[in-house]
Order: sequence, then C-alpha cells, then structure tokens
Amino acid sequence: MAGKLTVFHEFRSRMNTKLLEKGNLQLKRFFNLDSQVYTDGALPSRTKELMGLVASAVLRCDDCITYHIIRCAEEGVSDEEFFETFNVILVVGGSITIPHLRRAVETLEEIRAAPSQEKKVKNRRSNEETRGKGAKGKRRQR
Amino acid sequence: MAGKLTVFHEFRSRMNTKLLEKGNLQLKRFFNLDSQVYTDGALPSRTKELMGLVASAVLRCDDCITYHIIRCAEEGVSDEEFFETFNVILVVGGSITIPHLRRAVETLEEIRAAPSQEKKVKNRRSNEETRGKGAKGKRRQR
Amino acid sequence: MAGKLTVFHEFRSRMNTKLLEKGNLQLKRFFNLDSQVYTDGALPSRTKELMGLVASAVLRCDDCITYHIIRCAEEGVSDEEFFETFNVILVVGGSITIPHLRRAVETLEEIRAAPSQEKKVKNRRSNEETRGKGAKGKRRQR
Amino acid sequence: MAGKLTVFHEFRSRMNTKLLEKGNLQLKRFFNLDSQVYTDGALPSRTKELMGLVASAVLRCDDCITYHIIRCAEEGVSDEEFFETFNVILVVGGSITIPHLRRAVETLEEIRAAPSQEKKVKNRRSNEETRGKGAKGKRRQR
Amino acid sequence: MAGKLTVFHEFRSRMNTKLLEKGNLQLKRFFNLDSQVYTDGALPSRTKELMGLVASAVLRCDDCITYHIIRCAEEGVSDEEFFETFNVILVVGGSITIPHLRRAVETLEEIRAAPSQEKKVKNRRSNEETRGKGAKGKRRQR
Amino acid sequence: MAGKLTVFHEFRSRMNTKLLEKGNLQLKRFFNLDSQVYTDGALPSRTKELMGLVASAVLRCDDCITYHIIRCAEEGVSDEEFFETFNVILVVGGSITIPHLRRAVETLEEIRAAPSQEKKVKNRRSNEETRGKGAKGKRRQR
Repeated sequence: MAGKLTVFHEFRSRMNTKLLEKGNLQLKRFFNLDSQVYTDGALPSRTKELMGLVASAVLRCDDCITYHIIRCAEEGVSDEEFFETFNVILVVGGSITIPHLRRAVETLEEIRAAPSQEKKVKNRRSNEETRGKGAKGKRRQR
Repeated sequence: MAGKLTVFHEFRSRMNTKLLEKGNLQLKRFFNLDSQVYTDGALPSRTKELMGLVASAVLRCDDCITYHIIRCAEEGVSDEEFFETFNVILVVGGSITIPHLRRAVETLEEIRAAPSQEKKVKNRRSNEETRGKGAKGKRRQR
Repeated sequence: MAGKLTVFHEFRSRMNTKLLEKGNLQLKRFFNLDSQVYTDGALPSRTKELMGLVASAVLRCDDCITYHIIRCAEEGVSDEEFFETFNVILVVGGSITIPHLRRAVETLEEIRAAPSQEKKVKNRRSNEETRGKGAKGKRRQR
Repeated sequence: MAGKLTVFHEFRSRMNTKLLEKGNLQLKRFFNLDSQVYTDGALPSRTKELMGLVASAVLRCDDCITYHIIRCAEEGVSDEEFFETFNVILVVGGSITIPHLRRAVETLEEIRAAPSQEKKVKNRRSNEETRGKGAKGKRRQR
Repeated sequence: MAGKLTVFHEFRSRMNTKLLEKGNLQLKRFFNLDSQVYTDGALPSRTKELMGLVASAVLRCDDCITYHIIRCAEEGVSDEEFFETFNVILVVGGSITIPHLRRAVETLEEIRAAPSQEKKVKNRRSNEETRGKGAKGKRRQR
Repeated sequence: MAGKLTVFHEFRSRMNTKLLEKGNLQLKRFFNLDSQVYTDGALPSRTKELMGLVASAVLRCDDCITYHIIRCAEEGVSDEEFFETFNVILVVGGSITIPHLRRAVETLEEIRAAPSQEKKVKNRRSNEETRGKGAKGKRRQR
C-alpha cells in the first residue's frame, strides 16, 4: 500500500492500541459497539460502510473518510458507486465538503493503485458468496 | 396521513413553491440537482435515500430526517433496516442525535399507521420490478 | 408586525433581559461585543448583517436567521439580494439548509407584510444619507 | 413540575421506551453506555453532567441541554455556576449559542420554581455525603 | 506566490481536474453552480466572496477559507475589511474559530507578500470600473 | 517540551501576536474575554478547562484540544480523569471524535514526557494552596 495510507494505518493502529490500553471499560465498550454496527444484518455491511462514508464526509472528518473508503473498497464498491456517493455528500453537505472530496479522490487512487488491494477484494467477494451460511464477516478494529 | 406529517407536507410544499417562484435560476438548479442525485444509478435510489437519512441525522435536521424517512418507507425500507440505520447514526453522531431519533421513531410510527402508505409502497414495488426497462423512477420535488 | 415575529421579539427581549440581569460581567461583555461588531466601520453595517445572516444559516440556527433577516430588511436589503444570499448559503451549506430557507422565506414575507416595516426602512435610509457626519448607527441589543 | 418540563419528560420517556423496545442490541448498548459515562469515577458525576451541558450547548441541541440542566440542578449546581458555564459555552461556541442559552435560562427558571425540585436536591446531597461507602449514584435512563 | 499558497493551488487544481474527469454529470453541475453563485448580480461578487469567507470560517474549513481569502484579495478587500470580517466570524462562531483565523492571517500575509498579487488587484479594479457595460467578471473554477 | 507541542506553541504565539497587532479593538476584547471565562470563580479554573476540552473535542478542533489538554495538565488533571473526559466526549460526540482522541492521546504523552511539565504542575499546585488569599491565577493568552 502506498505512502499516505501506510502512515494512516500505522498511526491509527498505534494510537488505538494506546487508547484501549489506557482507556477504561466504557471506552472499550464504545469501540466494540463501533465495530458491531457495521456488520451484516438486515442491511449488508457494504451499505453500512457507505453510510459511514456519507456520515464522515458531511461531518467532514478526513481520517474517518479515509477509513470508510478503505472499507468500502474492500467491500467491492466501484468507482461509479463512489462518485454517486460523492454526489449525495456534495448536495446534502454543500461545497464545504469539496476539499474533503479532493482528498477522498486521492485516497481512492492510492487504494486502486495498491496491488494487494485487488486480491483482498477478490477474496472478500468469494467470502460473500458463502455468506449466509454462518460466516458473518469479521471486521477489524476501527 | 396523520397530523404531524400532513403539517410537514403542507408547509414544505407551500414554501418550496414560494422559494422556486421568487428564487433565481441558481436556486432552481440546486433544487433540480437535489432531486437528481437520489435517482437510480450505479447505486439504487433506496440506498441513496438511506444515505440521505444518515446525512440528515448526523447533521441533525429534523425536517430532512422526516423527508428521508418518508422516502425510505416508500422504497420499502423495513423497521429492522431503519433501526440498523439508527445504530450507524448513533455511533457516528453520538448521543446528541438521540432526541432526533426519538422524533424519527414518532415519524416512522405515523407513516406505518397511515393506510395510504401501504398501498404506495406496493405500487412502488411493482414499478421497481419493471424498472430497467427504461422507466427511471420519478422523484417528487424535495 | 405579524404573529411569528411578535412572538420572536417578545421572547428574545424577555430572556435577554434575564440573561443580562442574572449574568455576570463576562456575559454582558460578550453581548456588548456582539452589538459592536455589526456597526459601520471599514465595512458598512449592511454588509455585516448579511454576513451574520450567512453565518447563521450555514450554522443552521433559525432564531439567528430571523434576527439577521429583520436587521437586513431594516438596512434596506431587497428581495433579489436576499435570494442571492440564499444561493450562497445553499451552495456552501448544502441541501441541509433548505428547511431553514423555507422558514426564512416565511419570515421575510411577514416582514414585507408588516406596515411599520416600510416606514422604519425609509427612516433608516435617511439616516444613512447623513452617516459619516458623526452619527454612527445605533444597534439594538441582539 | 411546570409545563415545558413535563412535556419534555413525558415525550422523552415515551419515545425512549419505544426506541428500546423496537431497537436492537446495539441500540440498547449505546443507551447503557450513555448512562455509565456520567456516573461517579475519578471525576464526580456533577462535573460530568456539567461537561454534558457544555457539549450539548456548543453542539446546540435544546433537548440535550434541557436534560443536562435538569441533571445538574439535581446535583446541586448553583445559578452562579450555571452562568459561569454559560460563559464558557458562549465564548467557545459563539453568539450562535445565544438562542439556546435564552431557552436554557427559561428551563432553569422552571426547575427553580418547581417545589419538588428543592427536595430532590436535598435528598441527593444527603446521598452524596454517604457516597464512597459503596453506593454509586444510580442514574435514570437518558 | 509563496510556498503554502502554491501547494494549495497545485493540489486543488490537480484534484478538481480528477473529480471532474471521473465525476458524473451531477458533480459537474454542482461545480458549475458553485461558480455561478459568486458572480456579480444584485449583490457584487466582492460581497459574495466575503460571505463565502464567513461561511467557510464558521464551518471551519481551512481550504475553503484560503480559497475565499485569495478571491477577496483579488476583489481588493483591504486588511481593515478582512479584520472586521474576522470579528463577525469570531463573535458568531466563537473561540473555536481562532486557530483558523491564525492560519487565515498567515495566508493573508503570503498573499500580500506575493508581487504578482498587487498587479492582479489593479487589473481587476480597472475591470470593475468598466463593469456594468456588459463584462461580467469571469470566475475561475473553485 | 517535545516536537509537536513546541511547533504548536511557537505558531500560536507568533500568529496571536499578529492577530492582536493588526486586529481592531473588538478582536482584542474577544481575546480578553476568552481568557477571563476560564479563571477561578464559582467554578474552579480546572473544571472550566475540562469544559473547554470537552467543547473543543465535540466541535472537533485539534488545536483547541491541544491547548486545553496543556492547560488541564497544568491544573493537575490525572490520566484517569482525562480518559473519563474522553468517554463523555466519545458518547456525546460519537465515533467522529475518535481521530481527535487519537491525537489527544499523543499530545498527552508528549506532555507527560516533558521534564519541565512536572515542575510547572507542582508550582501551580503550591499556588493553588495559597489561592483564595487574593492571588487569582493568572492565565496566559490563548
């Protein structure tokens, strides 16, 4: 994976570990809940990650946008679907979201250029075919 | 349709008419764009309306929430799906969204209790079956 | 002045009095500052009130919007100017501002329909002609 | 308790019941967490409720403000302390918070005028004296 | 033009191109609309750019603030006018805007120090003198 | 004091000087007010700085968070108290605050690792013991 994403992953992972090590029970519970709400249910995880992307973008948090773009890409969201999502973000949230969309496009490019990504999506998709047979998709810690 | 929703529809419709009558070309263009982004494309209208609901709720606008709940219900979103959407809203947006979710549940109850609703959903669904044959779903003005 | 505006004025005036009576020195200082920044300076009060309207609308506070629409109308802002301001609000702030703009149009209608308003604007305008001769426009407490 | 507060309590209680009845496990967990974080710990519940008030006010949610003013009053927060809290809110959040502070003052007046309030605070205070002996303060559902 | 601004221009221009290349019709329409609303009309472009600055600052988006400061400087906004605008921002938006104002002052300094800027403003001003004779000011893509 | 904090202090101090030098009277008054509201009163400065931290975090301004963490640490806030404050932030503000909390934890680590910090807290505490004898704690400019 390319530069900006590597930095993002490394910092997020290192500081989440610290937050959870030093944090109290309530903080751990919040983090657990934050993972649970995106798993497959009546709505598929894919739709929920798209919702997470929209929420992050209208609230304008770059790190949250990056995180959900990565997750959406893992769920096999296409470029065309990403850009229709950007439309909803732009219309609801206004031009104030444009700088975030510029950075989102940059993130998306990095993801598409990363060789490992392709494989991960394929694997994920094969898993999706067997879903419903008991194997709920595991989701990494935010 | 019951009380609160009727008031909502009446005021929205009356003031939108005024906005568009007195408004300039740019305002009309924005309203057109606002309709276009929720139509079927790479992502179905249903998913986009759910996105609109999430965006409205984390930005905490009751009228926008009401509007998208109505539209989602028309698209056949189930109670279970609504509540999973509320989970995403609650976790991303925090407890500050709770009063809006209380009002959202009230709105949802009114919609479910309205006899006309049932029929509209059914009709819509039959339309969806014939979609893809050229008949892109028309969407009423926001 | 018609119903909604009378209620707004009465509540604002009554509660501001209480805030300032019970409030400490810092609260009074903030209220003073809040009046000072809208007075004529390098930029005319009229432009600053329009700025106040834009800020209130993108931050989506109905009472603040109502207040600045009243003040802008007093400064002689025309309907055409109001609607161009609404365009900026709509594009920067997104469709989430639409319900606020609907209520803003309603407020504007009440103001235009109020007979006393016409006179106030005229008086104000005569004052503006003599401005620069020492008579900085007084501004009522927010 | 007077009018506005009674309406607030009644609606909140009724809709929270519905949210929890229809809601899934994740929603219940969020509500539990929302109660837990305000209980006594390294910081007393009183300080946390004041924090909740500040957060609600700068995010500008009237119902959340009402809730935390009620809780702060139960914790024995004095008018002078409330107004210093309003100062912090006003300076950090800006004049956009003023309409919320006007309504907050109205809520506070209703609470102070309610005869039952006085007693509740006294009881709470006696409880606080025996705190630390094992009896963590119970907190009603938000 | 000095360092920070060059980086800003280069990234904005490069990513806007990508957004518009890959983006669908709706995205293009939003970008067009975003340009149109700042052109001269009942209100001059200068006032609208100041509004854009205020909106960007109270919504706290550094890139949007940078963009509108550049545009306002091109429209001949003076330092005194900028600082009165900062006052409105500070009072409406609160101390939470201070870090953005610190960066805004840095941006303004870079603009004033850039030799090319002086010339552009002068040219623009001569254009303004001939305005009204049909030559509506062109505005570069956001 | 370590790297990130030094950069923060240096930029803040340099740009605040410029803001106040070039700024008008209203800007100076806002800055004064911003200092006054955090001084000891009915509520101790410590509680107010914690409020400032909560407000900054739910409004999601990293520089404001950094500033108030520094001030809270000077007031002797313990790690356990910081993490309970993070809980309130997380629950009220939602997962959108998580990236800010990651950076907050990093800031806190830097502060705890800085040798000079320890001494400053001790000195401050001795000052606090003599407080109430007339010596209101001085507070540096934001």
